Amino acid sequence: MSTVTVGVVGAGRIGRMHASNLVHHVPEARLKAVSSPHIDEGWTRGLGIPVATQDNEAVFRDPEIAAVIIAAPSGRHVELIRRAAEAGKHIWCEKPVAFDPQSITSAIEAARAGGVQLQVGFNRRFDPSIRRLAEAVRQGEVGELNGLRIINRDPKAPPIDFVKRSGGMFFDFTIHDLDTARHLSGRDIEEVYAAGAVLVDPAIGAAGDIDTAIVTLRLQGGALCVIDNSRQTGYGYDQRFEAFGSKGNLVVDNLRPTTVEAFLDGGVFEDTPLPSFIERYQDAFIEELRAFIGCVRDGSPVAVTAEDALAAVRAAGAARTSMLENRPVRLDEETRGGGR
Amino acid sequence: MSTVTVGVVGAGRIGRMHASNLVHHVPEARLKAVSSPHIDEGWTRGLGIPVATQDNEAVFRDPEIAAVIIAAPSGRHVELIRRAAEAGKHIWCEKPVAFDPQSITSAIEAARAGGVQLQVGFNRRFDPSIRRLAEAVRQGEVGELNGLRIINRDPKAPPIDFVKRSGGMFFDFTIHDLDTARHLSGRDIEEVYAAGAVLVDPAIGAAGDIDTAIVTLRLQGGALCVIDNSRQTGYGYDQRFEAFGSKGNLVVDNLRPTTVEAFLDGGVFEDTPLPSFIERYQDAFIEELRAFIGCVRDGSPVAVTAEDALAAVRAAGAARTSMLENRPVRLDEETRGGGR
Amino acid sequence: MSTVTVGVVGAGRIGRMHASNLVHHVPEARLKAVSSPHIDEGWTRGLGIPVATQDNEAVFRDPEIAAVIIAAPSGRHVELIRRAAEAGKHIWCEKPVAFDPQSITSAIEAARAGGVQLQVGFNRRFDPSIRRLAEAVRQGEVGELNGLRIINRDPKAPPIDFVKRSGGMFFDFTIHDLDTARHLSGRDIEEVYAAGAVLVDPAIGAAGDIDTAIVTLRLQGGALCVIDNSRQTGYGYDQRFEAFGSKGNLVVDNLRPTTVEAFLDGGVFEDTPLPSFIERYQDAFIEELRAFIGCVRDGSPVAVTAEDALAAVRAAGAARTSMLENRPVRLDEETRGGGR
Amino acid sequence: MSTVTVGVVGAGRIGRMHASNLVHHVPEARLKAVSSPHIDEGWTRGLGIPVATQDNEAVFRDPEIAAVIIAAPSGRHVELIRRAAEAGKHIWCEKPVAFDPQSITSAIEAARAGGVQLQVGFNRRFDPSIRRLAEAVRQGEVGELNGLRIINRDPKAPPIDFVKRSGGMFFDFTIHDLDTARHLSGRDIEEVYAAGAVLVDPAIGAAGDIDTAIVTLRLQGGALCVIDNSRQTGYGYDQRFEAFGSKGNLVVDNLRPTTVEAFLDGGVFEDTPLPSFIERYQDAFIEELRAFIGCVRDGSPVAVTAEDALAAVRAAGAARTSMLENRPVRLDEETRGGGR
Repeated sequence: MSTVTVGVVGAGRIGRMHASNLVHHVPEARLKAVSSPHIDEGWTRGLGIPVATQDNEAVFRDPEIAAVIIAAPSGRHVELIRRAAEAGKHIWCEKPVAFDPQSITSAIEAARAGGVQLQVGFNRRFDPSIRRLAEAVRQGEVGELNGLRIINRDPKAPPIDFVKRSGGMFFDFTIHDLDTARHLSGRDIEEVYAAGAVLVDPAIGAAGDIDTAIVTLRLQGGALCVIDNSRQTGYGYDQRFEAFGSKGNLVVDNLRPTTVEAFLDGGVFEDTPLPSFIERYQDAFIEELRAFIGCVRDGSPVAVTAEDALAAVRAAGAARTSMLENRPVRLDEETRGGGR
Repeated sequence: MSTVTVGVVGAGRIGRMHASNLVHHVPEARLKAVSSPHIDEGWTRGLGIPVATQDNEAVFRDPEIAAVIIAAPSGRHVELIRRAAEAGKHIWCEKPVAFDPQSITSAIEAARAGGVQLQVGFNRRFDPSIRRLAEAVRQGEVGELNGLRIINRDPKAPPIDFVKRSGGMFFDFTIHDLDTARHLSGRDIEEVYAAGAVLVDPAIGAAGDIDTAIVTLRLQGGALCVIDNSRQTGYGYDQRFEAFGSKGNLVVDNLRPTTVEAFLDGGVFEDTPLPSFIERYQDAFIEELRAFIGCVRDGSPVAVTAEDALAAVRAAGAARTSMLENRPVRLDEETRGGGR
Repeated sequence: MSTVTVGVVGAGRIGRMHASNLVHHVPEARLKAVSSPHIDEGWTRGLGIPVATQDNEAVFRDPEIAAVIIAAPSGRHVELIRRAAEAGKHIWCEKPVAFDPQSITSAIEAARAGGVQLQVGFNRRFDPSIRRLAEAVRQGEVGELNGLRIINRDPKAPPIDFVKRSGGMFFDFTIHDLDTARHLSGRDIEEVYAAGAVLVDPAIGAAGDIDTAIVTLRLQGGALCVIDNSRQTGYGYDQRFEAFGSKGNLVVDNLRPTTVEAFLDGGVFEDTPLPSFIERYQDAFIEELRAFIGCVRDGSPVAVTAEDALAAVRAAGAARTSMLENRPVRLDEETRGGGR
Repeated sequence: MSTVTVGVVGAGRIGRMHASNLVHHVPEARLKAVSSPHIDEGWTRGLGIPVATQDNEAVFRDPEIAAVIIAAPSGRHVELIRRAAEAGKHIWCEKPVAFDPQSITSAIEAARAGGVQLQVGFNRRFDPSIRRLAEAVRQGEVGELNGLRIINRDPKAPPIDFVKRSGGMFFDFTIHDLDTARHLSGRDIEEVYAAGAVLVDPAIGAAGDIDTAIVTLRLQGGALCVIDNSRQTGYGYDQRFEAFGSKGNLVVDNLRPTTVEAFLDGGVFEDTPLPSFIERYQDAFIEELRAFIGCVRDGSPVAVTAEDALAAVRAAGAARTSMLENRPVRLDEETRGGGR
């Protein structure tokens, strides 16, 4: 099969990471162009990318380009999806697609109208350990699924500026866990109870957000899922997952930079978990692009759809309502939907 | 200091374990008498216990006996506490003291009136790993406490007969976790949200109980605690505890019978966790008696009081109300209190 | 079956430990008498031992006593075994029986002549993890055995006085590993190469001994075994064992006082291994006495014989010769035998 | 600093891996040409390598090329080093440089005469965990070094054809461990005792080689090192390293493909270690090239020299003599030197 010619829209930290991954790790893709208001031509040259432009349209109009990676600021995702779909480009879009269900729905419709694929950047689904856990559940290794446990804690609270435009912790952070709950269980979320707190930094509370949460989900068929979130650990990026069922419990643990254990007078010392999502999900970031390019090449459906994004945003909305009203919220209630 | 002469009331499985622990592992105690309707004199002789009787009063009236261990069926605990207190015996009572706050309060008053100590059998507080975790939290090793995680899962669901007279899972099983939350945090529980389900055995549901629960607690000062319960694992007795704070996360893991790891073609194999509470808390069962006997000898206050039992039962009541009404319940609400 | 009446000869640290284990953990034994030149009657009374005497003969002559535990100083073991055998008592003797093969042979003959059992205190054989490893090898779980790895390191170098009368590190310390190699493999040792060094404390070298060694064994049938010894770790008592074969590798790891893991900024901290042989082999010390008493009761042969002690001492002698002459030594050479 | 233009000589499995690593992971290098008798132009085109040739001279004569990676068959390494040195190219050469000290010495002289750098492919030195261990030893984290333990076991015995031309296990396989002993300790090897055996496959013995070995090293200053080798595990590639000293013990453990732990009835199951050196030392293979290119750019001395290769080969020769004559061999003896 032939190579897929690709453009990347957006060249911030994450856009540059995706561009570099395409060049180095996705041999089936040819990265032709990157667009960004702040494009750095030294950087594109270094990666051997022929076209560096400030104009997204140069990407959308290029007839050679078959697929685009959207990594612009979140607030512009839906508009860029629409434009790419019109231009007939297959689309991979960084999460969040949007904070409100209506916008995501419109993105889904645009992709359908354009006849293009639309994959969403829930990268964790491509992590080797998580993927194996999901397969084990699907194949019945844990028997009937009774529960999931997800620990997701960031190493360091984000800047208050980011907090203000993040859509709130449930939409920006917990959303990964809500998707993971659906992915691991293969089931939809029926009810959400979210207990939130400001325990890390009062400034986050002052900005109208929380930094700590315990979210309990009831999944279709009755299994319970608990999500444990914090914006700051001090000991690295804490990512742990468990699936518990009638036959046993499967556990995914943290990764560490080295395996060194130091047995010394006073204690045994090991490395803390990997410091951030960049290192932890390094392989997953590559695999999600490989999977997308593979689907573009052979026309098979993408593994993570905008419908998945929609389901996760709806659950995030329910979590917010639950927290604000301090009550469990069913997903089939008329929720208010979107982010702040 | 002199030896404390002790009587044991009740000689079922747990009563016999306590008697054996007193004889073999608490040199400061002298076990003089055991009473039980089904007393086995071969067994008492084997342990060198001078008096075996069917009459509890023979224990309470013996002027040599300074302290009693109450391990009779749960429904008789309060009555026996009252009788022991009248007789001026210091009291150690197996959990649960009672399922309703009023009864526990009356037991507290009886002990106070009799001028005797009253310790309750929350054995986990004496487990070396959990004790160390509690000390670490108290000494600020995790910084400001943000959260607790408690996983408590039984190896095998109890017989339906037991389920029916157990008081319900929150009163019989989760109650240990509610006490552990108070012990680890050094704080009271302010609010409870309990999501329960019947996922292990429909017969448990038919008996009016649940077998699976996720319970979220808000503790005084704001920290969140999540309790994960199941009546059946298939892989042994799952007992894990975490305390998370501004400086880090402390984890207590399961114990296993051996440390053998088998690296074979196809996988690495290890032992499952210890099979039941008997093995897992073997040391804790001994230490709680040692601690009690120590307090009797030197008159220092016991470490686990009936007030602790009262607080745990109130939280269990709130959990039940929460589950039944599917809403968070504050401990300072007028709760309905007791067990079924 | 009836209880076995037992006497203990020797009441130093180890003798007192065995006496206490008999009283508390071996219900099939009745400890009637302890003899020692420095007997402490308060201690025997506390344990409920009827007879405390300075005269070993009072033990040997007591017709009620069927078995003796010899825990006197090593230099007197053989003489006491002979005396006990003459008196018709079954014998459990602490290691080392003696440092020279001739003495052990004479002890074996004395026991045979007296028609009594003679078990030797290689306690490790009764450790649950090591026992499981030995069974796995015997049952072919690792396939054909290719190699053993034994790490045995003491927490803290012994006093120089002890070093001087210890018989040398191979006879006092490595001897456990030489027995473990035979136990785990079920095979005899054919050749020994021992590299020794003084790296912990020059005073040990000045006393004519070593404190560090790597000992390579060729076992019957060709498997290789490597023993790694040090007199001092600083991080506790390091006891690790591996059996490697055509089907895999089985590993026994250290035990720790608690399972607490502290995830903190700067590292993850755990407990060091258990501090000494007393804690590490606590269960094994009990099990070896239980096994002995069981054999006395039912007449079945003991699991660890003086022939095992003889084989270990011969291997220790070969190790010493190997180190002194810096060459591999076959066990079937005319070795010089005994300790210094 | 400018980019370094590089040629790769040899395009077998390992040559292609290095070429791919240069293209994808060493941005400071520009891979211009690859030569091999069996060059695959589709593969070079796919990687964007301009020149694909069957003629090594085309690489050596290219004035643009500043450095060459030699990954041709081992038997040709010295000849190619000489030719590259004459041509003034800096050299990175896969291990083994040669099996005999004289040839390595001549390669060292050729590089010196040509005024070029010569780095050798002891890739393990660049593994993050091993590098950290070496630094810890150098910085005194373990105190005075007393001992090293190296376990190196291959997943599956190589084909007999390879065994025959491999130079023997000590020269082909153990040589990595001999270098690691020098690297971790920062010390030279003074004496070697090697016990070898044929336990995996009699055909290896028939081919004149061994498949199992325990090698004991005495290092300068007195520390002891033990190397444990096997040609076949069945459970993956076993790579473990320990450094033991007066302050403690540092351990490097195996890496596994995922962290999944399955707690099931009957046992807890985990992944076996990574399957082969390709996965295990993936990062190290990249880092060694990065380090080499860095030294070429700034003229700093390379970290792994042909003198290191010489020292390792001398130790391998001593190991072979030791095994054949069954005696410890000092490195300062007149050893017979090279491979078979």
